[in-house]
Amino acid sequence: MPVEAERQNETRRFFGRFFETAGAEAGLAHTPEPPYWAVIFSTRRDEQPGDQYDQTAQRMITLASQQPGFLGVETVHADIGITVSYWTDEESIAAWKRDADHAFAQYEGRTRWYDAYELRVARVERAHSFVRDGT
Amino acid sequence: MPVEAERQNETRRFFGRFFETAGAEAGLAHTPEPPYWAVIFSTRRDEQPGDQYDQTAQRMITLASQQPGFLGVETVHADIGITVSYWTDEESIAAWKRDADHAFAQYEGRTRWYDAYELRVARVERAHSFVRDGT
Repeated sequence: MPVEAERQNETRRFFGRFFETAGAEAGLAHTPEPPYWAVIFSTRRDEQPGDQYDQTAQRMITLASQQPGFLGVETVHADIGITVSYWTDEESIAAWKRDADHAFAQYEGRTRWYDAYELRVARVERAHSFVRDGT
Repeated sequence: MPVEAERQNETRRFFGRFFETAGAEAGLAHTPEPPYWAVIFSTRRDEQPGDQYDQTAQRMITLASQQPGFLGVETVHADIGITVSYWTDEESIAAWKRDADHAFAQYEGRTRWYDAYELRVARVERAHSFVRDGT
């Protein structure tokens, strides 16, 4: 199997833990009682064929999920993209950023990926969950 | 023009301020220097024909944007939905919640809309923006 395909499969298997959970709450992160931290990454893309964006975005999430302090992630892409990752503390976010910067550096195309983005680091103070009964 | 269509048009005009901005950063919220507050609303829907979800979701955003203390909103829906609204302070969020609860109460179907959701209130401590030069 080509290296790229194998890597994508690996990523997919890994993602299964977050995105393919059976049940109503698939795709939503299960986070502990606050306080904890959120990184809100909102993007407007400049899509280019073959720009490796999807693989790299997945790789970033995989990297995040392997970090100490990672609590979960929620991600949606349509006209804009929003990815929110959740963390136990600020130090975990800083460590992830160092790793992500390092990994990102191998993709020369990254500067072309976004027309604009907003990256916000926030401390979650309150949270409320709802899951439908019987699902 | 039927009331519903007129209301949707009004909503669309109103949304223009946030979602149809020309330029690269359309769809992203322009927020001031931190600190400010974010409400992260992540949802998994139970879609039903004619369930008035889209209109009501838009109505909620319109209501939010008319509140004192509202700074902006980013929203994406695909397999899950993520809507992040930004606020100057917690009191503004509380005032909006009271209004939203009141407006929501008229939609009996709302309890069927979601399979699951996570609502998180967070204080944004740091933020970083990027907008491509020349767009």
